[in-house]
Amino acid sequence: MDSSCYFDFQAATPVPTDVVNAIYLSLKEDWGDTSSKSKYGVKAKETIDRGRKSVSKLLNCTPEDIVFTSCASEGNNTVFNSVLKYWNNYTKTTGVKGENPHFVISEIEHPSVIETVLKMENEKLITVSFLSVQQSGVVDVLSVEDHLNMYKNTVIVSVMLANNETGMINDVKSLATLIKRFNLNNRTNKKGCPILVHTDAAQAIGKMHVDVQSIGVDFLTISGKKMYGPSIGALYIKSPIKITPIYPLIYGAGQEAGLRSGAENVPMIAGLSLACDMAMQGIYRDLDHYDTLTKHFLHIMETKNPHKDVFEIQFNGEFTGGQKVTPNVVNFSLKLLDKMQIPMVDELLATDLAQKLSERGICIGKRSACYPGRPSPILSAMGVTRDCLKLTLRFSVGRETCIGDVERFVDAYWDMINDICFNTKQISYIGRIFGWNV
Amino acid sequence: MDSSCYFDFQAATPVPTDVVNAIYLSLKEDWGDTSSKSKYGVKAKETIDRGRKSVSKLLNCTPEDIVFTSCASEGNNTVFNSVLKYWNNYTKTTGVKGENPHFVISEIEHPSVIETVLKMENEKLITVSFLSVQQSGVVDVLSVEDHLNMYKNTVIVSVMLANNETGMINDVKSLATLIKRFNLNNRTNKKGCPILVHTDAAQAIGKMHVDVQSIGVDFLTISGKKMYGPSIGALYIKSPIKITPIYPLIYGAGQEAGLRSGAENVPMIAGLSLACDMAMQGIYRDLDHYDTLTKHFLHIMETKNPHKDVFEIQFNGEFTGGQKVTPNVVNFSLKLLDKMQIPMVDELLATDLAQKLSERGICIGKRSACYPGRPSPILSAMGVTRDCLKLTLRFSVGRETCIGDVERFVDAYWDMINDICFNTKQISYIGRIFGWNV
Repeated sequence: MDSSCYFDFQAATPVPTDVVNAIYLSLKEDWGDTSSKSKYGVKAKETIDRGRKSVSKLLNCTPEDIVFTSCASEGNNTVFNSVLKYWNNYTKTTGVKGENPHFVISEIEHPSVIETVLKMENEKLITVSFLSVQQSGVVDVLSVEDHLNMYKNTVIVSVMLANNETGMINDVKSLATLIKRFNLNNRTNKKGCPILVHTDAAQAIGKMHVDVQSIGVDFLTISGKKMYGPSIGALYIKSPIKITPIYPLIYGAGQEAGLRSGAENVPMIAGLSLACDMAMQGIYRDLDHYDTLTKHFLHIMETKNPHKDVFEIQFNGEFTGGQKVTPNVVNFSLKLLDKMQIPMVDELLATDLAQKLSERGICIGKRSACYPGRPSPILSAMGVTRDCLKLTLRFSVGRETCIGDVERFVDAYWDMINDICFNTKQISYIGRIFGWNV
Repeated sequence: MDSSCYFDFQAATPVPTDVVNAIYLSLKEDWGDTSSKSKYGVKAKETIDRGRKSVSKLLNCTPEDIVFTSCASEGNNTVFNSVLKYWNNYTKTTGVKGENPHFVISEIEHPSVIETVLKMENEKLITVSFLSVQQSGVVDVLSVEDHLNMYKNTVIVSVMLANNETGMINDVKSLATLIKRFNLNNRTNKKGCPILVHTDAAQAIGKMHVDVQSIGVDFLTISGKKMYGPSIGALYIKSPIKITPIYPLIYGAGQEAGLRSGAENVPMIAGLSLACDMAMQGIYRDLDHYDTLTKHFLHIMETKNPHKDVFEIQFNGEFTGGQKVTPNVVNFSLKLLDKMQIPMVDELLATDLAQKLSERGICIGKRSACYPGRPSPILSAMGVTRDCLKLTLRFSVGRETCIGDVERFVDAYWDMINDICFNTKQISYIGRIFGWNV
């Protein structure tokens, strides 16, 4: 398998040679302790400063708003742990007593959001409400008002920017505007603890424009691994402490302006720095490229369908133009129009299509790896039927993918479906009886 | 400045070329998601498995006992947060009510231990006792019994294995034995919550034999950055969950057997893996090498002293043989025998010697960078006087250091002291009057 057979860029992106080389150089030269006066320490500090600038430039904020974390999961955990402390301190200082703080998250968040919040609920530290997903696949952000009216002590609302399974983009900007207005009307003059807005943008960076000023959130999580960078994360915090209250998850020698202690991962910061610069410079080219590829994919998946009377490809998401979905990903299901015409229909429904394709040397995401053993909440909400869910794949392209790769994938896909459904060896006898043309 | 002028290996070690290359290769090949079936994902999983084996081999435990963390600080934070939850769950399950859990730590722990614990105490979640340091520089581990008798709800005792400022080795083995006996006599048959023992071994790995079976601790923290590895940490947990209760600090998609969620830093694990193999294979050679260098240093620092009637070098630690100190580090102070004979004594006491040496291209640790603005607790306990504290340096050698480097350091050191104390330009007039031979 080489990268031309890889269609799972939504799960992980390769690290470009230039980024690898930046990390290599940093490993060689920036190994000193950042508090040391040795050239190795001084260079390490410079690399961190440069990295912070690159991330802040990409997100359109100041470098002071960026805290490096080991991964997006740490970033998300930091936000929810911090907000819980913020509430506890608020109640201590103001003498407000009583109920637990109330968190609102969408039902399609990454496990590092869902599990963190559920664990807190389980420990009876918080109350949680979930924002549901509309049939279109986007989170019903405006329904947050119902929750704010029902609970008087909401502290945070968190909705991911782009969904990992479908690429559907949520209207976090409207959510943030709504919360800002709510805070203004209800939470000023010590009338209550203002509500903060968080978005997990791990799947959005590099696949859409992300401008924290324009979106208007208080926290935003990014992941190097999903944006042609290395294993490292960063957390945007709108003017930490000065405007946005923040408490560290990891305490210690006070690195990252006291917001995240622990030896900085300087080489990975060097890599993320370059990955951000590349994402910023190449965003138009990348988006165009992804758009061309996935449009072609949508087209030929239909035209190359060998049994249009038997199968239909159902694309799970809105592909009607405009930026409703990140252009690098297409979530699709094989819909069976006429089961009677498929001799091996039971075998088809029992087949793990991603596994079957991997046997043909093709790597594709079956679904998000994040919900093992659970049905995908977003696809269920979008009305993907039980049968269709089994036959759903997540096709995603990257900078390296070319039109030829897409065509080879589509050919291999239909070839495989044909093989499973009309396996001549198994059905030759029955086939001859029924006169199937396989 | 090149590495022959670097004597701050205690703060950070360079990353050896082989380790850099291992990381480089992993960046190129192991970038897939570990749950993916692509070759990039499969290779990533293999690299993690190999890394876990290497760490466990070095520490003499099973791979299942190792959890990768982003750094030693995260490892330490994980332990204390976990133990707090362990107590809370214990009281919930048993119906035991009342007081906060009691933590015992030494007064010379790394900030990622001290700050974490103090923050919890500040939030009135725990009670803390500190083990003091004896004049010899080692923690008085046996005094833990007084604390255990005074508080009935001790949950954890944490003492670092080797101290970062002096290299003094603490008798964690005796501490663990004592706690084990105490648990056996006092905490079995539901008589109470057993006490766990943690040691921060960040400064010990690669500088002494570390065998978790022999030491007998429940938790042990390691840091790649201090042992010729990259920026990554690992936490030893004695049979996690099965024997030792453990709760994650970071929740999410359940990586690291559910004990530490978040995308694994595969390339850094590849580097740590090789660093562990190298530390294991080379430990005898390294220790011998360090021993030779520091013995020579101790010797020539005295013999090359140009004013034996004026100065004395005070070595802060026990260097009487046996493994009481890690052999790569010597903490030493310039002791003034006769201030009257030093014309520029005030300037000397006002000088930052490490800074002054860095102007001469030499990098050395003034003291641990971990206690900015605070007096070093270990040196104070060892009776280093106020004047001496100001004139204290931490000399540490590495694999790259040779005898010639040590000699050049000692020459430069005395040359600098001479310059400051008997600065001919400034004292030529006074000197002539008093007849000083400068």
